[in-house]
Amino acid sequence: MSAAARLAARSRPLSAPNPGVGAVVVRFGAIVGRGWTSAGGRPHAEANALKEAGNLAKGASVYVTLEPCAHASPRGPSCADLLVETGVSEVFIGCRDPDSRTDGAGIKRLEAAGIRVRLVKNEACYQSLAGYLMQRRSGRPHVTLKLAMSLDGKIALADGSSRWITGEVSRNHVHARRAQSDAILVGGGTWRSDAPRLDVRLPGVENRSPRRILLSRGPAPEGVDTLADPLEIATLDGILYLYVEGGAETAAAFLSHDLVDRLEIYRAPIVIGEGLSAIGDIGLSDLSGAHGRWRLVDTRPLGSDLFTAYERTR
Amino acid sequence: MSAAARLAARSRPLSAPNPGVGAVVVRFGAIVGRGWTSAGGRPHAEANALKEAGNLAKGASVYVTLEPCAHASPRGPSCADLLVETGVSEVFIGCRDPDSRTDGAGIKRLEAAGIRVRLVKNEACYQSLAGYLMQRRSGRPHVTLKLAMSLDGKIALADGSSRWITGEVSRNHVHARRAQSDAILVGGGTWRSDAPRLDVRLPGVENRSPRRILLSRGPAPEGVDTLADPLEIATLDGILYLYVEGGAETAAAFLSHDLVDRLEIYRAPIVIGEGLSAIGDIGLSDLSGAHGRWRLVDTRPLGSDLFTAYERTR
Repeated sequence: MSAAARLAARSRPLSAPNPGVGAVVVRFGAIVGRGWTSAGGRPHAEANALKEAGNLAKGASVYVTLEPCAHASPRGPSCADLLVETGVSEVFIGCRDPDSRTDGAGIKRLEAAGIRVRLVKNEACYQSLAGYLMQRRSGRPHVTLKLAMSLDGKIALADGSSRWITGEVSRNHVHARRAQSDAILVGGGTWRSDAPRLDVRLPGVENRSPRRILLSRGPAPEGVDTLADPLEIATLDGILYLYVEGGAETAAAFLSHDLVDRLEIYRAPIVIGEGLSAIGDIGLSDLSGAHGRWRLVDTRPLGSDLFTAYERTR
Repeated sequence: MSAAARLAARSRPLSAPNPGVGAVVVRFGAIVGRGWTSAGGRPHAEANALKEAGNLAKGASVYVTLEPCAHASPRGPSCADLLVETGVSEVFIGCRDPDSRTDGAGIKRLEAAGIRVRLVKNEACYQSLAGYLMQRRSGRPHVTLKLAMSLDGKIALADGSSRWITGEVSRNHVHARRAQSDAILVGGGTWRSDAPRLDVRLPGVENRSPRRILLSRGPAPEGVDTLADPLEIATLDGILYLYVEGGAETAAAFLSHDLVDRLEIYRAPIVIGEGLSAIGDIGLSDLSGAHGRWRLVDTRPLGSDLFTAYERTR
């Protein structure tokens, strides 16, 4: 199932607004087919994996991160029907699909055809569906807040200079994360002072530059959308993953509204001392209220920086 | 040699002002003797290791973190003489002893007796001698600056409340680090606001509470020494390892004088936003001047906190 979740990552973000799903077909103890959701959403992961498996799919075990869909579309049959027609023997599912058109109907269809179905709990699988599940359950995108700062939590000197805090490896990593997002958001202050291009400047994925959003009550620059308030992210159509890049006031605004699901911190091995703090006022009045909200899920060196990721515990 | 360096850690801090040395005796491919500097400095590591090896020491290979001493003392013969008398066949040395009474004389004594001597470069070995080498070369203790802070670099809320930022596992780790230090230093502000006990409250090492020092121009409280300026650490007799615990102005004072050799950061998984920053003004006017000074040497989870250590590159 973890292998299927890794395949699912390949469909991000081009599958949006469809969920990025991964599927693996196993026969005689070997992987004979692998698939993930195609750009635009079709074909689905199961169809791609079954196609790769060919004749070996009959009698096979299939691992799929999300419940196979039960609804046919003009673009193809439902995945549940396809699995039945192919004659697979069992299907392992990472997550039931909350979409009202499926929501258990895919499982029922498989079982009615005599296919053994098992729901498997798998962390990597939930992670790979985070944006889709957040949209379906809470009606808003999954939000990652990116912070690039010094050891002492500063994002600029007192005079505002901020180039560069982190190293080139970290900055390239940020471009890769932008390429996996459906939209990037910055605050008005950052827009005016840094004039960030907010595009993807990595060889091979330059065309993946996501939608750009400004958190501002003012007029929108050309090619950029604006939101007046973080709560308005619920109005963003077709956005599963939102990547918030700061600055300090924007970070604080999203955190105050408890709208951050993941913190990604690039920590440079430097001390700044007096300077601009990474996060503005979040209205915290009691230390105990700050605890129990974040869980460390990733730690890795990036060049001489340290990357850490924290997930919101909910 | 790494095994010898690990043994050396056992003599810290009770060997001070003598260096904490580790020694391993190998015969027929097996470790037959292990030793480290005894409390108070004598017997030395070599004597302890050779004693444990007994008759097996004759013809053995000896690994020792610091050049065996060439000076006899009322408390025993020189280690070089002892190794010669024992009849070991070869000695691997991690670091030449800068003490003027040895400084190559130990190696000469061994070689004159036909013992093969090799100097081995080993990072763990230098680390284990950091306090001693700093005192001999720069005339001051090795300084570790401890920082316990939030993800965004804060050590307290705006109203000063700071209990607790980090968790119990981190706080116990701090007590263990205190027990390995010869002296602990805090600033006057921290002393007045937090009234820290600065003692070791871990079972079994309560009696290891190190000397307490206040960075202050005011009068010294009972049982506490004062220093008016960070540069005065050069006057501290018999202190190899100084552990600086803050607060923000004291941290900045030591960093401004480039007197910090190691940063130990306990990072709680919390966001504070508006609050007190961990490090005050260090007079940084140009970001490029902040880079290239710190190297990440340790990362580990401590409960739900993340511990990282950085060494000053020199």
